[in-house]
Amino acid sequence: MKKRMFIGIDIGGTNMRAALIDKQGKILQLNKIPTDNAAGAENASKRLVETCRSLVQKSPEWGGNVVGIGMGVAGKINAKEGLVVFSPNIPCMRNYPLGIELEEGLSIPVVMENDANVFGIGENWIGAGHALDNWVGLTLGTGVGGCLILEGRLWEGDHLGFAAELGHIIVQPGGPLCNCGLRGCLEAHASGRALMQGVEEAVEQGALSNGPLFEKWQRNALNPKVIYECALQEDPTALKLFNRMGWALGLAIANLFTALGIRHAIIGGGVSASWDLFVGPLRESLANHSSFLSPEEMVILRSSLQDDAALVGAAKLAMDLTV
Amino acid sequence: MKKRMFIGIDIGGTNMRAALIDKQGKILQLNKIPTDNAAGAENASKRLVETCRSLVQKSPEWGGNVVGIGMGVAGKINAKEGLVVFSPNIPCMRNYPLGIELEEGLSIPVVMENDANVFGIGENWIGAGHALDNWVGLTLGTGVGGCLILEGRLWEGDHLGFAAELGHIIVQPGGPLCNCGLRGCLEAHASGRALMQGVEEAVEQGALSNGPLFEKWQRNALNPKVIYECALQEDPTALKLFNRMGWALGLAIANLFTALGIRHAIIGGGVSASWDLFVGPLRESLANHSSFLSPEEMVILRSSLQDDAALVGAAKLAMDLTV
Repeated sequence: MKKRMFIGIDIGGTNMRAALIDKQGKILQLNKIPTDNAAGAENASKRLVETCRSLVQKSPEWGGNVVGIGMGVAGKINAKEGLVVFSPNIPCMRNYPLGIELEEGLSIPVVMENDANVFGIGENWIGAGHALDNWVGLTLGTGVGGCLILEGRLWEGDHLGFAAELGHIIVQPGGPLCNCGLRGCLEAHASGRALMQGVEEAVEQGALSNGPLFEKWQRNALNPKVIYECALQEDPTALKLFNRMGWALGLAIANLFTALGIRHAIIGGGVSASWDLFVGPLRESLANHSSFLSPEEMVILRSSLQDDAALVGAAKLAMDLTV
Repeated sequence: MKKRMFIGIDIGGTNMRAALIDKQGKILQLNKIPTDNAAGAENASKRLVETCRSLVQKSPEWGGNVVGIGMGVAGKINAKEGLVVFSPNIPCMRNYPLGIELEEGLSIPVVMENDANVFGIGENWIGAGHALDNWVGLTLGTGVGGCLILEGRLWEGDHLGFAAELGHIIVQPGGPLCNCGLRGCLEAHASGRALMQGVEEAVEQGALSNGPLFEKWQRNALNPKVIYECALQEDPTALKLFNRMGWALGLAIANLFTALGIRHAIIGGGVSASWDLFVGPLRESLANHSSFLSPEEMVILRSSLQDDAALVGAAKLAMDLTV
């Protein structure tokens, strides 16, 4: 009998990645194709079906058979209807039936989830959270995604179409404007976008007017990685932004630990590559804002699956729904 | 066969209340005795045993038999050891084996819980939360207590000796000093103590120097109820304090709804008698700090059991553990 295998998909603004994954969570083959928003949703959907079909065709070589597909999307989805409702990073896909097209194109069941939730499912299964009952997950990217694993399972709340939107916890009332329209959200302090906006504001206020960071800004060559490199070279504006990121993360996590009576958090996402710069201020803020736990009791872990967390989590989601 | 009955106990700084309660949660008889800190813990414990014994002796008149005792304590407890560890309002009971003495004195099993948690158990059983799966509970008293009911059960987190300490969520970093030593906690805005401190500060800063509120302060006759009455008479200092209370409650509840993906909260405790003064600002703040739910979707309920919630919840706790 052939082994049951799965395809895990991670849909991002720049790339779409699809992987053939076995039931231990091992990635057997990974395909990466550009999202290419300019070419439109239909084009992207067709190419995604094609790349998944090639994985399905490959599976016999591994002694397997693809029985389910899981997809994580950075944005709001309607899992029941197989829709990408709205994704800020994939503007072409407003109310687009990506899940349906994939399912019909391949005749294999497809499940969809928010990208921070598949991160949580992946880390919970075979990542940094595998031995933990209860933890808070944060993904630092263009925005800040969140998930809660409670009693070993992804927490889904009242099934309101969102849960654990930890990026929109308000850490500083009246603070910096967030993409969601409110002020002072965690995301407005601890995301790639917050770093970029922080530099813009420093220039506007005259606090940044020379040096490598300013030059990059002038040449329109700024991105979170550049800001990170400038901070490593001790640019005071860049350092301040990573300190603020750590402060906000520490405060948000402290509040979540106090509210939930738990003590573990796992941080992932592309911007968490700047770990060494924000984790010090994070731990300091966590200690300063906790009245029930000592610093030693509180455990902040880095994602162990890194880029693969969403792929693996999406595959696990498909696995659990096709038993 | 005799009906199984329970005693629910609520230990507060001023009074100890004990009630004979049937398995539908009906209070058959309620005894109230002063806590009398000055007379010491041993004296209080002896009198509590006596009043419970009288309830045990009364139970046959109701056709019942007391098989379990539940006790809610405003403070930190060690349920396993039957200890009151520390209660700010019952200073005489530091590390006092109140649970053990009760159990030995009556030869009936005793369980203990934090008072906000028994409030949650009571409201969840036959109160405002009885039809809800997921909700946030807040008790406004001298301090602010909290509980979380998730999937119909009291959430206990990682069993760290606390959970849902919602009074110590930080809503205003660097804000007013809290009894816990941190700044900007919900409790430092939304408790009886916060109202009292708010008046003190207004006097110190010269913002309050005449009128009925000032006169009460001068005569050392201030308490939360007096501040409430002055607010009803439109004293600007008192009104400002209830506005601040509502603002902080709204922000904290918004953050909890965002983090948990839920939409119901239940508020109780003595200071919630000032409901009409803080609920307007609360709803406004809730709307202003929520990015995922509309004001219509968010439901703020008042405790329906009021003073009885803790008694009933304590009895339910005993019931569940003596099945």
